[in-house]
Amino acid sequence: MEDDLIQKIKDIVPTCDANTIVGIGDDTAVINFKNNPNILATADMLMENVHFRRSWGEFYLLGKKAVMQNISDIAAMGGTPVSALVSIAVPPNYAESEILEIYRGISDAAREHSITISGGDTIKSSDKLVISVAMLGSAGDTYPLRSGAKVGDIVAVTGVLGNASEGLRLLEQGIKLENATKEERKLMEAQLLPVPRVNAGRILSKIPVNAMMDISDGIGRDLRRICTMSDVGAMLYEENIPIDDDLRSIAENPIQSAISGGEDFELLVTIDEDKFETARRALLPLNFTAIGKITADKQVKLQRKDGETVELYEGFSHF
Amino acid sequence: MEDDLIQKIKDIVPTCDANTIVGIGDDTAVINFKNNPNILATADMLMENVHFRRSWGEFYLLGKKAVMQNISDIAAMGGTPVSALVSIAVPPNYAESEILEIYRGISDAAREHSITISGGDTIKSSDKLVISVAMLGSAGDTYPLRSGAKVGDIVAVTGVLGNASEGLRLLEQGIKLENATKEERKLMEAQLLPVPRVNAGRILSKIPVNAMMDISDGIGRDLRRICTMSDVGAMLYEENIPIDDDLRSIAENPIQSAISGGEDFELLVTIDEDKFETARRALLPLNFTAIGKITADKQVKLQRKDGETVELYEGFSHF
Repeated sequence: MEDDLIQKIKDIVPTCDANTIVGIGDDTAVINFKNNPNILATADMLMENVHFRRSWGEFYLLGKKAVMQNISDIAAMGGTPVSALVSIAVPPNYAESEILEIYRGISDAAREHSITISGGDTIKSSDKLVISVAMLGSAGDTYPLRSGAKVGDIVAVTGVLGNASEGLRLLEQGIKLENATKEERKLMEAQLLPVPRVNAGRILSKIPVNAMMDISDGIGRDLRRICTMSDVGAMLYEENIPIDDDLRSIAENPIQSAISGGEDFELLVTIDEDKFETARRALLPLNFTAIGKITADKQVKLQRKDGETVELYEGFSHF
Repeated sequence: MEDDLIQKIKDIVPTCDANTIVGIGDDTAVINFKNNPNILATADMLMENVHFRRSWGEFYLLGKKAVMQNISDIAAMGGTPVSALVSIAVPPNYAESEILEIYRGISDAAREHSITISGGDTIKSSDKLVISVAMLGSAGDTYPLRSGAKVGDIVAVTGVLGNASEGLRLLEQGIKLENATKEERKLMEAQLLPVPRVNAGRILSKIPVNAMMDISDGIGRDLRRICTMSDVGAMLYEENIPIDDDLRSIAENPIQSAISGGEDFELLVTIDEDKFETARRALLPLNFTAIGKITADKQVKLQRKDGETVELYEGFSHF
C-alpha cells in the first residue's frame, strides 16, 4: 500500500503508552510486559459479506467491533487487553475516507480500553474488505479455561442473549440505524457494537469460576465446547434464559435467537453452586443469571418450559 | 467454520512447548515470557491474486512463506520468534486437502524455528483466500531500529538481491517449479520460500549495527524508509549490489530487479565503518556486502557503473 495511507492511519491510532517501547513503523513493535510474564494472545478475522456488508455503511462501528471482539476473548480469560496488531486488506472500490473511518472506530475502541495499536499490515485486496486483528493481553493470577467445568456446577451467563443475532436479521432486511425504532436500534447495536465484559471477566476469574468463555457462536454451540473440553454434559432451563423485552417484542422466536444466535459476546461460565450468589452480587449492576447445571451424562440438553427435554440445538453460522 | 476442519488443523500444527501454558482451543493462548519481558509483535497478511495465485498450486510453500515472512520481521529486530497466531479465510472453491497442505507448510516453518502456533481464526471467505499471521518474539538486549542510521555509516545487505521478484515474473509466466530449469527454480524458490535471517539478525544486533530492517519492498523503497526515519540520505554504488549469477543469466535488467524487486527478505543494515569487517566475518558463510554509505543530504541516490548519479527509483508494488 501507499506509505501515504499508512501515515494517515498512524496519525489516527493510539500507538504509544508506558509499556510500548517501539510502536508502529518498525519491523516489529516492542512491548514491555515486565509486570506479568504470562501473555494472552488471540486473533479474529472479519470479512465483508461473511461478517458484515458494505451496504450497512457502518464503517466506524466495524472498526470498533473488530477490536471489541478480540477484547472479549481477553475478557473471557479474565485478562487485561494491552495491545493490538491490525491488518487490513483494502479493495479498490473503497474510498480512503471509509478506510480512515474504520480506523477511527479501531482507535476509539483502543482508547476506551487503554490499549495501543502496535502494528499490522495494510494491503490491497483483490476483492472484499478483510480486517484481521491480533490482540495481546496481560493475564491475571488465574485464567479460567473452557476445560474446567465440573459436574454440579451452575451454568451462568452475563447480560442478555439473542439481541445480536436478531440485530443481524434487521440489518439484513436493509434497516438502517438512523431509521430504526428505539427497540430495533438496541438489537442492531448489539450486533454492530458488542460490549466486551472485561471487568466482569476479571471479577469472575478471581471468584474463581471453574470454566469461562465468551459467547461468539451462540450458547448452543459454545456450551457444547465447554462440555466437550471438560468431558461433562449440561442441562439448560428455557425459563431461565435471560431475554431482553425488546427481543421478545421483535423476534419471531426469541428463545431460538437466544440459544442459537451468535455474537452476543457475553460471558458463559460454570461456577460452584455456593459461589454463584457472591459472583452475582459482585457483578451488579450487570445481570448474571443461572441458566442450567453441569451434568455427568455428557449430553447438552434444554428443558423446555412445558417440561419436555430436548437436545440443545447448535448455534450460529455466518451468512 | 466447522469444528471438524479446525480439529484437523490443530492435529497438524505444533501447539505446545515449555513456554506455552495454554495453546490453541481456548479463548486465548497463554504464553510465558518470563525470561524476557520485552515482546516483539508483528503481523502480515497474504491475499490471493495480490501476493500469490492459486494456479501456482504451491499450497505447502504458501503456508511456509506466510510464517517465514513474519519470522523475517522478528529477525530484523535481532529477536527470536516464539509463537504465531494464524488466521485464514477459506473460499468455497478450495478443497480441504489444499487447506491442510497450507497448514503443513505453516507447521514445518514453525517447527524449523521452534515456534508454536498458539491460535488464530478460521473463517469462510466470500471470495479469495487470505492468510493473516501475527507473530510474537522475544527481544534481545538490543533491537536495531529503522531510525538509527548515522551519517558516515556503511549501508550493507545480507545475501543477494532481486531473485525473488524475478522468480515472481517466472511464476507469472506460468512456469511450474517441476518444469523449471535449475536456474529458474532457484529464483522461483526465492519468491515462494524466503529464508528469514534469524541468526544473522541476532549477530548483527549484538555487533551492534545502527539501523536494520528486512527488505520486503526492495532496497529502493526500504532504504528510503530508513533514511526518512533517521533523517539522513544515502548513496548506493551499483557495482557493489550483490547479484546472483543466475539472476544475471535470466533477468532482462538484473540491477533493476535487485533494487526495485521486493520480497528478498534479506537484512538491510547501516553500520559504523569500523565494525563492518567484524560483522562480515561473523556472518560467514552468509554473504554480507557493503553497498553504499549514509549521507547528510537526505537524498537517496544510486551511482551507476558509468559514474552517473541518479535518484534511487522506488521498489516493488504487488501485481
